[in-house]
Amino acid sequence: MTFIKTDDYHMRREYTAQYLAEYLNGEVSGDENVKVFSVARIESAKEGTLAFLGNLKYEEYLYTTKASIVIINRKFEPASPIIGTLIRVDDAYKAIASALELFNTKSTSKKRGRSWGADIAWSAKIGHGCYIGSAAVIEKRSSVGRGVQIYPQCYIGENVSIGENTILYPGVKIYADCKIGSNCIIHANAVIGADGFGFAPLPDGSYKKIPQTGNVVIEDNCEIGANTTIDRASIGSTIIKRGVKIDNQVQIAHNCEVGENTVIAALTGISGSTKIGKNCRIDGQVGISGHLTIADNTSIGAQAGIMSSIKKEGRSLLGSPAIEAREYFKAYAVFKNSVKKR
Amino acid sequence: MTFIKTDDYHMRREYTAQYLAEYLNGEVSGDENVKVFSVARIESAKEGTLAFLGNLKYEEYLYTTKASIVIINRKFEPASPIIGTLIRVDDAYKAIASALELFNTKSTSKKRGRSWGADIAWSAKIGHGCYIGSAAVIEKRSSVGRGVQIYPQCYIGENVSIGENTILYPGVKIYADCKIGSNCIIHANAVIGADGFGFAPLPDGSYKKIPQTGNVVIEDNCEIGANTTIDRASIGSTIIKRGVKIDNQVQIAHNCEVGENTVIAALTGISGSTKIGKNCRIDGQVGISGHLTIADNTSIGAQAGIMSSIKKEGRSLLGSPAIEAREYFKAYAVFKNSVKKR
Amino acid sequence: MTFIKTDDYHMRREYTAQYLAEYLNGEVSGDENVKVFSVARIESAKEGTLAFLGNLKYEEYLYTTKASIVIINRKFEPASPIIGTLIRVDDAYKAIASALELFNTKSTSKKRGRSWGADIAWSAKIGHGCYIGSAAVIEKRSSVGRGVQIYPQCYIGENVSIGENTILYPGVKIYADCKIGSNCIIHANAVIGADGFGFAPLPDGSYKKIPQTGNVVIEDNCEIGANTTIDRASIGSTIIKRGVKIDNQVQIAHNCEVGENTVIAALTGISGSTKIGKNCRIDGQVGISGHLTIADNTSIGAQAGIMSSIKKEGRSLLGSPAIEAREYFKAYAVFKNSVKKR
Repeated sequence: MTFIKTDDYHMRREYTAQYLAEYLNGEVSGDENVKVFSVARIESAKEGTLAFLGNLKYEEYLYTTKASIVIINRKFEPASPIIGTLIRVDDAYKAIASALELFNTKSTSKKRGRSWGADIAWSAKIGHGCYIGSAAVIEKRSSVGRGVQIYPQCYIGENVSIGENTILYPGVKIYADCKIGSNCIIHANAVIGADGFGFAPLPDGSYKKIPQTGNVVIEDNCEIGANTTIDRASIGSTIIKRGVKIDNQVQIAHNCEVGENTVIAALTGISGSTKIGKNCRIDGQVGISGHLTIADNTSIGAQAGIMSSIKKEGRSLLGSPAIEAREYFKAYAVFKNSVKKR
Repeated sequence: MTFIKTDDYHMRREYTAQYLAEYLNGEVSGDENVKVFSVARIESAKEGTLAFLGNLKYEEYLYTTKASIVIINRKFEPASPIIGTLIRVDDAYKAIASALELFNTKSTSKKRGRSWGADIAWSAKIGHGCYIGSAAVIEKRSSVGRGVQIYPQCYIGENVSIGENTILYPGVKIYADCKIGSNCIIHANAVIGADGFGFAPLPDGSYKKIPQTGNVVIEDNCEIGANTTIDRASIGSTIIKRGVKIDNQVQIAHNCEVGENTVIAALTGISGSTKIGKNCRIDGQVGISGHLTIADNTSIGAQAGIMSSIKKEGRSLLGSPAIEAREYFKAYAVFKNSVKKR
Repeated sequence: MTFIKTDDYHMRREYTAQYLAEYLNGEVSGDENVKVFSVARIESAKEGTLAFLGNLKYEEYLYTTKASIVIINRKFEPASPIIGTLIRVDDAYKAIASALELFNTKSTSKKRGRSWGADIAWSAKIGHGCYIGSAAVIEKRSSVGRGVQIYPQCYIGENVSIGENTILYPGVKIYADCKIGSNCIIHANAVIGADGFGFAPLPDGSYKKIPQTGNVVIEDNCEIGANTTIDRASIGSTIIKRGVKIDNQVQIAHNCEVGENTVIAALTGISGSTKIGKNCRIDGQVGISGHLTIADNTSIGAQAGIMSSIKKEGRSLLGSPAIEAREYFKAYAVFKNSVKKR
C-alpha cells in the first residue's frame, strides 16, 4: 500500500489485486499485480479503477467494463470471458463496503472542538474529543459521550443523552428527555421526540391535546435518515432497538417499537403503538396502522398497507390491505386483464 | 395533593383516587384512598401508577394490570373482576389527557427571555414574556405576540405575524408575509410559506416559474407536525382554519384551504387549490388531487387517493381512486380471491 | 405605468389593459383603458384586479367575476357574455406568470451582505453581491458564485460549489463535495447529499454500512422543494439535470439520475440507481423501484408504483404496479363493481 500526495488535502491511494484479495478474503483470477486508484461503477469504470458486480442487472457490463479489477461473488459463473482481473469473494456487497472504506479519505477525518457559535448550557456534560459546530444548541442537563460529532444547527433539548461516537448531521433536532445510543448516525434535519399526534375529541368538534409526556429511545448502532421524524411516546418510550436502519423521510409515531436490525425504506409511515419485530425489511412508502404487532423477519413490499397484525414470521407481503406478495401479483394480473377478458 | 421534592428540578406528585375522580368528573369504584405517583401504559403499569383503557384492543390487560388506578369509560362493562381501583368517566381519552397534565411538569415550565445568539431585526415587534432561542432569526416588520416561544434555529421572515402563546419548536421556517394565529404549536423543521409548485411550460420543454405572491394563514389553536410543509398561495392565501391538527410530514400545496377542526395524519399530500371541509378526518399517506372540494365530516382512510370532489357530507372513503370504504373492502375481498376462484 | 406609494415599504402599481396586452403579447377585448392594481383569483376577485382563466374547472366564475380584466386563452370560446375586459393570449398560464412578475415587488428586492452571525471558513470563496444570513455555515474549500442568496441556518459542507444567483432558503443543508448549478432555487430544510441508504447484511443479522463516497450534482435552473432529500451516490454522482423541478418532500436515492426538465410532485420517492428520462411528469406520492430506466416524456399518475423499466416514450401510467392509465381506470371500474355484479 502506497500513499501518493496529490494535493494539499486529498490522499490518492493505490492497491494491487493481491493486496485487495487478502484484505477482502477473496481470490484473484487474472493479474495479481494490477493496481487500482479509486472505485467506480461497473458501467462507467475507467482503467485503474476497482468495480464490483452485485446486482445481476448489471451483468452485461462485466464483459465490457474497463475497470482494472472487478469484485464478484464466488458462486457467480460468468457467461463470457472477462478482460480484466477478478477478485472472487463470498459477498460482493460486503466486500465493496470494505473496499470503499480503504479509499474513503473522508471517514478518517473526524472533527474535534467546539465552535465559538455553539450555545452549550453550563450543566451539559460533554465528553472528550467531541465536535460541536456553529449555531448548535445543547440545553441543560444533557450529556454527550466521547467522540460525538454534532454538526452545525443541531438542537439537543434538556436532559437528553447521546452515546459515544454518534454523529448528528446539520439541523438534527432532539427534543427534551430523549436517549440516543452509541455509534448512531442521524442525518440532517431529522426530528427526534416531537409530540405524538394525540387528541381527544370534544363535544363541540374541537380537540383537546393529550400531553405527550414520554420520550424516544434509540439504541446503539442505528442510522436515521434525513428529514425522518420519530415521535415521543405519550406515556413511556418510543423505542428503536439496536442496529435499526431507517431511510429518509420515514415517520414513526408515538409509542412504536422497532425491533433489532430492522430496515425501513424512505417515506414509510408507522402509526402509533405498533410493534415491529426484529430483522424485518420494510420497503418505501409502506403504511402500517396503529396498535399492531408485526412478526420477526417480515418483508413488506413498497406501498403496501398493513391493517392487521402479522403473527407468522418470515412472510412477504404486498398490496393495501397487504396480502402475500405472490398472491398479490397473481390477483393483480387478473385485475389488469379484467377488461380484456370481458 | 402533595408535592414531594425528589431532586433539584423534578417534582414528584401524588394523588388519591378520590382527588382524581373529582378532578376528572368521574366515580371511584374501589379504594378511594389509594395513591398514584405517575401515569403508565396499562400493559406495563406498576403499583403506584395510573393507567387507562381507551382502545378495547388492550382490554385483556385490564384484568392483569398492576396499575393502582385505571380510568375506564363509564359505559364499559368489564368481563371479569378487576384487582385495582377504577375511575369511571364519560370519555377515558379526554380524562387521561387531563390526568397527564396533572403529572406533566414540563408543560408548566415556560421559557422566557432572548438568547444572545438570536438575530432580531430592530423593526420587529416582540410581545411580553416571549422566549427567543439561540440562532433564531426574526426579520424586519414581523410581529410576535405575548408569551410566544420561539426555539433555537427558527426563521421568521419579513412581515410575518405570530399570535399570542404560540410555540415554534427548533428549526421551524416561516417565509415572508405569513400569518400564524394564537395558541398554535408548530413542530421542529416544519416549513410554512415556501413557494407553491407552479410552472408554465415553454415551447422548448423547459418551464417558467409562476411567481408565488400570496402567503399562508394559519388560524388559532392549530398544531402542525414536524417536517410538514404548507406552501404559500400563488395569489391570495393558503388557509388553515382554526383548530386544525396536522401530523408530521404532511404536504399542503398552494391555495388550499383546510376547514375547522379537520385532522390530517402523517405523510398525506393535498394538491393545489383543494378545499377541505370542517371536521374531516384524513388518515396517513392519503393523496388528494388539486382543485377539488371535500365536504364537511368526510373520513378518508389511509393511502386513499381522492381524484374527484366529495359533495355529500359524512362519507367514509378508501382506495385509489377512493370509493366507499365498505365497498372497497368488499371489492378487495373479491380481488384477493380472484386467483383461487378460477 | 405609474407607481403609487402606499406605505413605507410596499409599492402599489397600476397598469392599463392596453399596457398589459402589449406586455403579454395579447389582444384586448373590452375597455383598453381600464386599470388594475393587483392580481386576484377569478373566484374572489374584486374591482381593480387582474384575474385569469387557465383551468376550465373555474369557467363558471368567468361570467360573474368582478375582476376588471381577465386573461384567457385565445382559443377559448366563452359560453356567455362577459362583464369585464378580456386579454386573449396564446397561453394563459405563461401570461399570468409574467403578469405576476409585474406586480411582485418581492422578486425585485435581492438581499446583499454577510450577517455577523454567519460562520464562513477562510478558505471558502464567496462571489460578489452574495447574501449570507445569520447562523449560516460555509465550510472549507467551498465556492459560492456571484449573487447567491444563502438564507439563515443553511449549511454548506466542505468542497461544495454553488453557481451564480442560486437561492438557498433557510435551513438548507448541503453535505460535502456536492455541486449546485446556477439560477437554482432550493427551498427551506431540503437536504442535499446525505448518505445513500446502503448496507451489506452480515451473518448475525446486523448490517455493515456501505460508505457513500460520491456526491450530488444539481445542474442549472433547477428548483428543489422544501424538506426534499437527494442522497449522495455511493460511487460517482446522483445527478439532477438542468431545468428539473422537484416539489416538497420528494426523496431521491443514491445514484439516481433525473433528466432535463422533468417535473416531480410532492412525496414521490425514487429508489437507488434509477434513471429518469427528460421531460417526464411524475405526480405526487409515486414510488419508483431501484435500478430502472424510465423513458423520456413518461407521465406517471399520483400514487403509482413503477416496478419495471419503461422503454417506450410518452406513455401515461397509473396503478401499483403501474399499467397504462386508461387500462387502470377500466380495470378499476370492474374492480369496484365486482361486488354488485355477483
